[in-house]
Amino acid sequence: MRPISSIKSRIRDEAAHLLKCGAPAPDIDLAERLFNELRQRTGDGRPNLGVTRVSYGLGEQIAHDIVQREARRLGLRCEIDAACNLYLVLKGRELGPGIFLGSHLDSVPKGGNFDGAAGVLAGLAVAAGFVRAGRRPARDLTVMAIRAEESTWFGASYIGSRAAFGKLTENELDTVARSSDRVLLKSAIASAGGDPTILKAGLAHLSPDTVAAFIEAHIEQGPVLIGEGRPLGIVTGIRGSFRYRRAHCEGAYAHSGATPRGHRQDAVLATAHLAVALDNHWKTYTATGHDLSVTFGQFATDQENAAFSKVAGRVDFSIDIRSEELATLDLMRGELADAVAAIEAEFGVRFHLGDETGSQPARMDANLIAQLLDIAEQQGLDARPMPCGAGHDTAVFAQQGVPTAMIFIRNLNGSHNPHESMELEDFARAAELLAALCDVGFNSSQAR
Amino acid sequence: MRPISSIKSRIRDEAAHLLKCGAPAPDIDLAERLFNELRQRTGDGRPNLGVTRVSYGLGEQIAHDIVQREARRLGLRCEIDAACNLYLVLKGRELGPGIFLGSHLDSVPKGGNFDGAAGVLAGLAVAAGFVRAGRRPARDLTVMAIRAEESTWFGASYIGSRAAFGKLTENELDTVARSSDRVLLKSAIASAGGDPTILKAGLAHLSPDTVAAFIEAHIEQGPVLIGEGRPLGIVTGIRGSFRYRRAHCEGAYAHSGATPRGHRQDAVLATAHLAVALDNHWKTYTATGHDLSVTFGQFATDQENAAFSKVAGRVDFSIDIRSEELATLDLMRGELADAVAAIEAEFGVRFHLGDETGSQPARMDANLIAQLLDIAEQQGLDARPMPCGAGHDTAVFAQQGVPTAMIFIRNLNGSHNPHESMELEDFARAAELLAALCDVGFNSSQAR
Repeated sequence: MRPISSIKSRIRDEAAHLLKCGAPAPDIDLAERLFNELRQRTGDGRPNLGVTRVSYGLGEQIAHDIVQREARRLGLRCEIDAACNLYLVLKGRELGPGIFLGSHLDSVPKGGNFDGAAGVLAGLAVAAGFVRAGRRPARDLTVMAIRAEESTWFGASYIGSRAAFGKLTENELDTVARSSDRVLLKSAIASAGGDPTILKAGLAHLSPDTVAAFIEAHIEQGPVLIGEGRPLGIVTGIRGSFRYRRAHCEGAYAHSGATPRGHRQDAVLATAHLAVALDNHWKTYTATGHDLSVTFGQFATDQENAAFSKVAGRVDFSIDIRSEELATLDLMRGELADAVAAIEAEFGVRFHLGDETGSQPARMDANLIAQLLDIAEQQGLDARPMPCGAGHDTAVFAQQGVPTAMIFIRNLNGSHNPHESMELEDFARAAELLAALCDVGFNSSQAR
Repeated sequence: MRPISSIKSRIRDEAAHLLKCGAPAPDIDLAERLFNELRQRTGDGRPNLGVTRVSYGLGEQIAHDIVQREARRLGLRCEIDAACNLYLVLKGRELGPGIFLGSHLDSVPKGGNFDGAAGVLAGLAVAAGFVRAGRRPARDLTVMAIRAEESTWFGASYIGSRAAFGKLTENELDTVARSSDRVLLKSAIASAGGDPTILKAGLAHLSPDTVAAFIEAHIEQGPVLIGEGRPLGIVTGIRGSFRYRRAHCEGAYAHSGATPRGHRQDAVLATAHLAVALDNHWKTYTATGHDLSVTFGQFATDQENAAFSKVAGRVDFSIDIRSEELATLDLMRGELADAVAAIEAEFGVRFHLGDETGSQPARMDANLIAQLLDIAEQQGLDARPMPCGAGHDTAVFAQQGVPTAMIFIRNLNGSHNPHESMELEDFARAAELLAALCDVGFNSSQAR
């Protein structure tokens, strides 16, 4: 319920906006109303507890139903694929591959209201803006609500977007179970009204050549934009990674007072030296222009056997190395192997890194980035090119050869927690940027 | 049950021994029998489970009863003080302060049979040797079975030996509770037949000037003698320590992909740098002749909040720094403070070290060490001067101004576990060394 003064100010804003860039103003009031409905209907009770929208579960379904209801009210064409992804299409002025705006609607347990939903509601606000203004985008505009992006539920990445391209494997469908209730992925999809048989056959709903561009607006999950006082970032690439989730160092327990240095096999000191070695490489590589992050998120001696007066015989730890550049990941894999060998030799321990998991880096489209930066400049927006450290469905589109981009929206307190804090004003700037792009169409031949 | 051939070989050995040094051969068969009885009556069932002799509890009492029974059979005078320490006295040839041989009879839970008991049974074997040979030591020989040395039970160091000197505090007696059953120290002592009132009054059973020397034989708790193929070590000093048992590093949890290096407050990397900094000081100090050990026995991220894809916001850890030299401990305290300040500044974390505990180093008596090394050389024994990293009752005697020494006996697999493995032959060498000393008396004026 906005006061009259606010409505007047909004009308004034819209007029100024039309003068500035010509695209119809996105319907931010619609987005605000839907954010509130989402928070109310998928919230975990008290405000500070966050929201839970389980992949292929109740919360995600409520979100899809809300978005579909609004799209129908706007007169958008609604399609649902075999994996229950939702496509809301507004006809464009011209034929040909259209622009897709989208993100996911699930959340982590006790997560925030904006991670994922912001990208879908930004697309819907853009489409609604065109509808309200009685105008059409240059090409078909598809708002895509993607299923099951949060891997906390099924332990697999990008389920919905991969399914849209027919890239979900039969093995995943048959064996991956939801962490919360052990329901198999195929059963969860069927329960939501999807068709695992089609997915197992690898039949795609989307073909890369029918998508001119995929753009995902998303809250920034780090503190960079807040720190710099900028509302938006344009993502240049999604970092790939290699990870050892269950590594351990095997040493030997010994009396801390009675065991001389040369007789020790100290798992804590060995693993500390490994972390410091990789940290030093991180500093060096960053100083020479590489994109890199190094995280030992877990580092734990054994609760039962470790004691303050014992040399530690075992440390369990995890390593997460990320970079936008495949070559940098390969270099760090080499540095890790060298450090492991040197430390094993010096400390008499054995490192067991376990299975390596990870993902390939995904490059965003240079022309699309350039066009978005141009539009932002025209709109007087200080948008910053920046890497994206976390995985997003956009990576799947990029790997399929679709030109992609992401718009990061300034956000306090990170994501995946109830304290995500995006200002609606920043969200509106992102939607305006998207509206302008949809209005003129993606110029794929623009040189950077 | 030894075979005849073994008995013959023993008789031959004893004859050779008498030729070598003149002291009566210790009664190793008695010690062997008592080790077996101890293992049988205080064992935790199956052989690999170890023994449990709770301080002022059943297992320790059984051990004291066994030792007292044998002492009475040998005709030794038995005294029990207000803390239930046991003194078994064999009259010497001359009047004046006598030599004390002793150690403790309690064990850690599921511990080994030799830690502590070896020192008491070595003393008893020496006394028995004199009795069997119809001879007397130079001065009164007191075998002392000390109570409650293992701080795992009451969380306080050297309860029995401090009590013997009237140094147990009223506060400790009234408030310290046994970890296994929360029985207060004063109640536990009273249950064993002691008198907490006398202890609270600070009345000493022992006066330092009545003890010419205290010598504790003990299994080595580290691997040095095994590694060097030497049966015995002569301890030069008992390391002191300073410890932070419950330190933690406070950082901030953050997304591992989305948080750039400059925005992180990584508790794992910060604590790893702290460990590596102290490790580097350890190397440097050792290279320049300092005695030192550095142990981070515990180093653990939070089980609930840490994840492989999160920068760690907290690490709980322990630090145990030990040295024979008070000055080295002070230097390391300074290095620790410097490292903490530098790492806090670089990583934006806060270290909370918590309460410092620890103990003063105790120097063994140079003349006593020299005499023991001389005797060992006469006996053809390759005994090595070495530091002692763990705390022992000997430290209390040293702090009271009593000339002290410790004899380390080669031992496989460390101590405080069921796999302690001392060879009876090495034990016999230690007892022979003690017998020779008791035969000639401690020459406190011998220059090193």
